[in-house]
Amino acid sequence: MVTEANSAVDASGRNAFGQRIMELAGLLARWSETSDGLTCTYLSPAHRSVAAQLCDWMRQAGMAAEIDATGNVAGRYASDARAAKTLIIASHYDTVRNAGKYDGRLGVLTGLVLVEHLQRSGRRLPFHLDVIAFSEEEGVRFATPYIGSSAIAGKFDTGVVERRDGEGNRMIDVMCEAGLDPQAIPALARRPQDLLGYLEVHIEQGPVLLQENLPVGVVTTIAGAVRHQVTVTGAAGHAGTVPMPLRHDAAAAAAEIVLYVERRCTAAPTLVGTVGQLAVPAGAINIIPGRCELSLDIRAGEDPIREAAVADVLAEIGRIAQRRGVSVDVTEVARGDNVPCSPRIQQLLADAIARAGVPVRQLPSGAGHDAMLFAGVTDLGMLFVRCGNGGVSHSPREIITAEDADVAARVLLDAVLHLAETP
Amino acid sequence: MVTEANSAVDASGRNAFGQRIMELAGLLARWSETSDGLTCTYLSPAHRSVAAQLCDWMRQAGMAAEIDATGNVAGRYASDARAAKTLIIASHYDTVRNAGKYDGRLGVLTGLVLVEHLQRSGRRLPFHLDVIAFSEEEGVRFATPYIGSSAIAGKFDTGVVERRDGEGNRMIDVMCEAGLDPQAIPALARRPQDLLGYLEVHIEQGPVLLQENLPVGVVTTIAGAVRHQVTVTGAAGHAGTVPMPLRHDAAAAAAEIVLYVERRCTAAPTLVGTVGQLAVPAGAINIIPGRCELSLDIRAGEDPIREAAVADVLAEIGRIAQRRGVSVDVTEVARGDNVPCSPRIQQLLADAIARAGVPVRQLPSGAGHDAMLFAGVTDLGMLFVRCGNGGVSHSPREIITAEDADVAARVLLDAVLHLAETP
Repeated sequence: MVTEANSAVDASGRNAFGQRIMELAGLLARWSETSDGLTCTYLSPAHRSVAAQLCDWMRQAGMAAEIDATGNVAGRYASDARAAKTLIIASHYDTVRNAGKYDGRLGVLTGLVLVEHLQRSGRRLPFHLDVIAFSEEEGVRFATPYIGSSAIAGKFDTGVVERRDGEGNRMIDVMCEAGLDPQAIPALARRPQDLLGYLEVHIEQGPVLLQENLPVGVVTTIAGAVRHQVTVTGAAGHAGTVPMPLRHDAAAAAAEIVLYVERRCTAAPTLVGTVGQLAVPAGAINIIPGRCELSLDIRAGEDPIREAAVADVLAEIGRIAQRRGVSVDVTEVARGDNVPCSPRIQQLLADAIARAGVPVRQLPSGAGHDAMLFAGVTDLGMLFVRCGNGGVSHSPREIITAEDADVAARVLLDAVLHLAETP
Repeated sequence: MVTEANSAVDASGRNAFGQRIMELAGLLARWSETSDGLTCTYLSPAHRSVAAQLCDWMRQAGMAAEIDATGNVAGRYASDARAAKTLIIASHYDTVRNAGKYDGRLGVLTGLVLVEHLQRSGRRLPFHLDVIAFSEEEGVRFATPYIGSSAIAGKFDTGVVERRDGEGNRMIDVMCEAGLDPQAIPALARRPQDLLGYLEVHIEQGPVLLQENLPVGVVTTIAGAVRHQVTVTGAAGHAGTVPMPLRHDAAAAAAEIVLYVERRCTAAPTLVGTVGQLAVPAGAINIIPGRCELSLDIRAGEDPIREAAVADVLAEIGRIAQRRGVSVDVTEVARGDNVPCSPRIQQLLADAIARAGVPVRQLPSGAGHDAMLFAGVTDLGMLFVRCGNGGVSHSPREIITAEDADVAARVLLDAVLHLAETP
């Protein structure tokens, strides 16, 4: 079966969507805060140049576009029916430091090329199609992620504008200097009754699709993380004079915790557990560690699986501490439940993937995404795109292929067109 | 049997030696570089005040005493026989930062009270008895330990005077400002043929004697340490998106190394292995560690036992790396063979301990000491004194009792008197 999405692309050349996305991503990557590599954090000059460029491209694609009060670039490919509902296609355009070109931007550009295609073919939709480039998802500059998407989802915390960046600048002052009006942020919130749904294309940032040789996959759920900071306190001592059986080595206890987390979190397919921070403060080569600090981050595709793992890890930490005669201080520092993707949108994407002749792979997202913010606001769904280089992201080594970007754009277009035909 | 050592002390009051040692250690601790706690590093004003005080006390005890070219306080309780050999009783008077009062100083003060007793009782010896307070053992200020003892042992490396402290001051300039003559250091070296032996009393800095409820013990050997720095390089990744089986977590590999070192080094009584430094550089709670750095310090009472453990640890590190698909870079940063104490002096001390009615415990020293420098120069021996508070040292919590200091002084006096009676 040749769908409109596939035939349209075939008419305009092999991988035309993919080639265009790669070209635009390359152009956006010219703006960086650093002379080598790509860094584009909230409201830096590079960030503002990218916003202006995106706004131009949206207008050229026939959209009504503007930069909103948080710096989001919001474009509308309006329906002829003024009272129609709105489908949002969105992702973010800010980056981490020394980033790749596709994290966030792929989702924005996929929406853009889709509208370019609709405009070229003179096709209007029975709903407004809003492509939104969120200004801030990574949380780099103000340690505050999801600034843009939280505003659109009506979940913006107005208190965060008092936060300061690493150089002491307040967010509210930075916003005003950039010509934004922080007072207008609350009015950006979309009303749930106006929305048809939320779709986000994003690179997987992991190796699953790569390992399975698949260009795209349907996200089932966006995994919340439960995070703890752990301090182990043992007894410092001279490395030469304290016999092994008399030691209370904080680092050895921490090592047992690290290996237990690894072992326990290998027990279920979507479960992951990470000790990302591990340090003996002021450790010396000839001193038995009296203290060791570590972090825990545990996630899973399903809340009960994650909760069972967290409970087991905390219980094991207690047993390790007791057996070794060390004390542990465990503090929960973050707890986010999983956000499930809408079954209806998962099905819509799965059907489009199948029509593109690609096996349908469903997988959870271990990373957080702007889509999460729309839980409880509208039906949300995500399409993941395969990463190369082992699945690396947040790195200049992050890559995708034009072919995979093309598949993603065709799947998205097909899904949107099918949605347009569904009453 | 009541020996002269025991009867002499009994005559001058219960624990007289111990009380005097505690009093003098308290007086010396008044001089510190910090307003709270005790810090007395090489040639600081506090250090120079302590040297002057020790020199005064030695002279009051009938010794010819002076501050030598490295800041050592060298006192001689001379024999009537001018051509006699010399027995050295020594330890150091510098301290670590935020130190205890007894590390090093106990050995100096034990020698001092012994000479005070000999002077009081009008007893001369058939050998010169030199009490030396070494100026520098800890290596805090110039990252150069054993400055004082290496000069006396004829092992001073003249190149180290070019080293600078944390504030950029060259050692040679600091010496000159303190009125010392660095040119005169080589002449401080004692000739082996002039020496009868070297004795050092020192706190154990560990918990063995405390655990076994013994005031003193005879050191069998001073353990050398073999030290390595290890860098594990795995693959960094997103804590949420990389499934457990696809990870190459540098910290998990390091944790296995830590636990192997602990397990392997528990396999022999005097063997100890320590990972004192352990860190994921720039670790983040949501990033799989791509790198982890750790240190290794392995020691044992016998060289072959240490070497076997080192070989096993290095081999296991290789196996862990291969199994986990990480790379390791292992660099040996220090290698010191064990320095055995003279069997003759061990026996001399053991006999004196037995005569004091105390069970004889022989134990290796896991820490380095000034005594090591006299290997190959003269017969050396050490007497360890029990530490309280679990054996802690290099800490304000370092404590000993007057009773134990008293036993140590009586044992030392008894050993010296027996040596005087041995042809």
